[in-house]
Amino acid sequence: MITSSIISPQDIQAHYNILNRIGCLGDQPDKGFTRAAYSDEETAVLAYFATQAELIGLHTDWDAVGNLCIETKDKHEHWVECGSHVDTVPAGGNFDGLAGIVAGFVAIAALNQLPRAYGLRLRIWRGEESASFGITSIGASAALGLLPADSLNNRHAGRSLAEAIREQGADPKFIEQRQSTISQCELDHIAAHIELHIEQGIVLEKETLDIGIVSGIRASSRSWISLQGEFDHSGATPMGKTYRRDTNLALAHILVALDDLFSSYQKENPSIDLVQTIGHINSNKEKNEHDDELYNNAISKVSGYAYFSYELRSCDDILRNSYKKEAMQTVQNIAASFGVTVEVESVSNSSGVKALNQPLQQRMRSICETLHYKHRTLASGAWHDAALIAQQKRSDQSNIPVAMIFIPCLKGKSHSPEEFSSYEQIAKGASLLANLMQQDLNDL
Amino acid sequence: MITSSIISPQDIQAHYNILNRIGCLGDQPDKGFTRAAYSDEETAVLAYFATQAELIGLHTDWDAVGNLCIETKDKHEHWVECGSHVDTVPAGGNFDGLAGIVAGFVAIAALNQLPRAYGLRLRIWRGEESASFGITSIGASAALGLLPADSLNNRHAGRSLAEAIREQGADPKFIEQRQSTISQCELDHIAAHIELHIEQGIVLEKETLDIGIVSGIRASSRSWISLQGEFDHSGATPMGKTYRRDTNLALAHILVALDDLFSSYQKENPSIDLVQTIGHINSNKEKNEHDDELYNNAISKVSGYAYFSYELRSCDDILRNSYKKEAMQTVQNIAASFGVTVEVESVSNSSGVKALNQPLQQRMRSICETLHYKHRTLASGAWHDAALIAQQKRSDQSNIPVAMIFIPCLKGKSHSPEEFSSYEQIAKGASLLANLMQQDLNDL
Repeated sequence: MITSSIISPQDIQAHYNILNRIGCLGDQPDKGFTRAAYSDEETAVLAYFATQAELIGLHTDWDAVGNLCIETKDKHEHWVECGSHVDTVPAGGNFDGLAGIVAGFVAIAALNQLPRAYGLRLRIWRGEESASFGITSIGASAALGLLPADSLNNRHAGRSLAEAIREQGADPKFIEQRQSTISQCELDHIAAHIELHIEQGIVLEKETLDIGIVSGIRASSRSWISLQGEFDHSGATPMGKTYRRDTNLALAHILVALDDLFSSYQKENPSIDLVQTIGHINSNKEKNEHDDELYNNAISKVSGYAYFSYELRSCDDILRNSYKKEAMQTVQNIAASFGVTVEVESVSNSSGVKALNQPLQQRMRSICETLHYKHRTLASGAWHDAALIAQQKRSDQSNIPVAMIFIPCLKGKSHSPEEFSSYEQIAKGASLLANLMQQDLNDL
Repeated sequence: MITSSIISPQDIQAHYNILNRIGCLGDQPDKGFTRAAYSDEETAVLAYFATQAELIGLHTDWDAVGNLCIETKDKHEHWVECGSHVDTVPAGGNFDGLAGIVAGFVAIAALNQLPRAYGLRLRIWRGEESASFGITSIGASAALGLLPADSLNNRHAGRSLAEAIREQGADPKFIEQRQSTISQCELDHIAAHIELHIEQGIVLEKETLDIGIVSGIRASSRSWISLQGEFDHSGATPMGKTYRRDTNLALAHILVALDDLFSSYQKENPSIDLVQTIGHINSNKEKNEHDDELYNNAISKVSGYAYFSYELRSCDDILRNSYKKEAMQTVQNIAASFGVTVEVESVSNSSGVKALNQPLQQRMRSICETLHYKHRTLASGAWHDAALIAQQKRSDQSNIPVAMIFIPCLKGKSHSPEEFSSYEQIAKGASLLANLMQQDLNDL
């Protein structure tokens, strides 16, 4: 039943003409956007879509914690949903999250009057970015009753999360009581949930592809690893481990050993679903302000203190955990050989989605072939709201079928004013989304 | 003509009982000392020795730039000198510099009434530490007419160097005009110059030795090396050099390659006179305050910017320079393989003393054998005032014979309140110094 609903770049642009003015930091969108979680700017975007929805005869529903649902008014038993978020990091772009909402709205608008087997729903989640209150997917977690009550005390821009929620006309009580706004019955009646998002990586652009079909969603394990050696005079202390307990040299050898460890895994499995990143070496501003010892390093001293951040991401928690164990042993062994002691501080550990729904991925491939969109399958390196839906169970313990569509973004940039996807690129993603939402999904 | 003048620990302690009160930061010497270059505290120590000298019939002479000379009053044509400094780094110790002055004073006092072939002189230099005005060996350089005039504008504690010199009753005009206070004739009549100093390293302590006979004085070449890559999303950017231009990973591989390069040199020559130190990785406070880009690194980003300091020290400038050339090529090659660009900023390049006077070293070995002092030969990793004397020429183009005596210091620590050598250790060094100063040095 493919009727090939094609969304045009003009359909996308029409919304961006307005949305480029909400939370923008300059006259032009290239200066970046700031729409914090539960801010006036975020609410303004939700209100914009509520108004647009009502203008074309869609139903709108604000849940108790401030998320907005837009639904077709026909009465089907089951729903095909799409969703994403509209908040940004400070001085971020206008595509991370918002592209998925514009695509979803345009897709539902295009399908509204067409015959369908399902009701269609767009979920606009609040506060996916952790930049504001230090927690990711606030709106979706709260709606599912998963947000810890004490996160209401987290603060941003002079307000607690509870205060910010109240200011935006929503009610933190649901979070206090960990009460979900989406009932089990509602979950049971979701036929499929689809999120379109910019890739936030450079794979699609490098391979000049239109669409990424997401196989799974990576979650991360993050730690701080600090090394303690001995500060010594650089000229008077002979070279070698007998005399020097050099943390900088130990750190370099550790990083190379971790790189070698990863390579050995990758040699066994060239498409291994794992990325390892040392984002910080001594470069965390806040940490440095509270950690004078770092500044005891000097050009004319053997280094006695250093630290680095260690992040592993995988869709597969079991793979990630077993790799991490080996990596930490590597760190300990190398440090010990330099007479350097190690302290590991865990920052976070989240659960990924090993595999998104396979039949939905297969259908997306077919649609891409029909529409002549160049595509490939890839894991999502970043966390997305859709992961939370994928982690819910229906009453019969089956999973809700969840899919994600990636579109390319310029140079893989996100979380910066440089973030960019063209209206053409978004329109292709929206066309795939519309065609998928129109299908009979009984056999998933 | 060895009469074995033995200096006792009590001889040393008698002076320290007073000197532990000048510039000390607490009631006890273990809180550290601050005696800046051309400070009241530095002058107070010089004044103490001037008074002590006059009490025992020695001649005192303040030169135009504020250094103090203490001399025996007999009229010999040639002089055997010793010397060091009495200033400290902020919150430093009371042995770096001062131990050599106490030892020298006690040695000359012991020899004053004994028959000698030479006049004896103690030079107490001002401002050896670069911590105050950013220049090392201010007093000795100024006395030799080597201090650049513009260094008078360097500032410390709210004063220019010129103002500080004036406040201590000396005259910056000599420096303005680069006029030496030590004439060529005076240089021609120095039979030998000897500096006793704490090792500032852990070799003597580790090998439980009493004396280090210094073979040469290392100078350093220092650079900042910065790496520019590309910041990317850590989860969405695949591993490998095709996708990542990761400066942290490049930095680690560079440091390991430099370590390997050094090892290959050391394999060829196990006692190679060269040390290589990466003291800073992203850990220079001042640099970071002026370099926002460092703080673009994040736990969840591929690193796009990093820097490190690079220091080489050797007594042998030619060896150091040829090694450095190869090291910089290594840095460029590895960085290029990671798609990372390199910027090298030279900080300083100074000239070392490849070999101190060999006959003096031989005489010191003999004296140590006679006195049953355990000793070894080693290079000085740190710069010392004596290096400047070793770099001067007599009128006949011969070198002034220069020697250095090292004594052990606790854990190799210096430039910190932990800095410590015992009165016994200083006394042994002073005994060696006294015996050397008493010898006939005609055949050097």
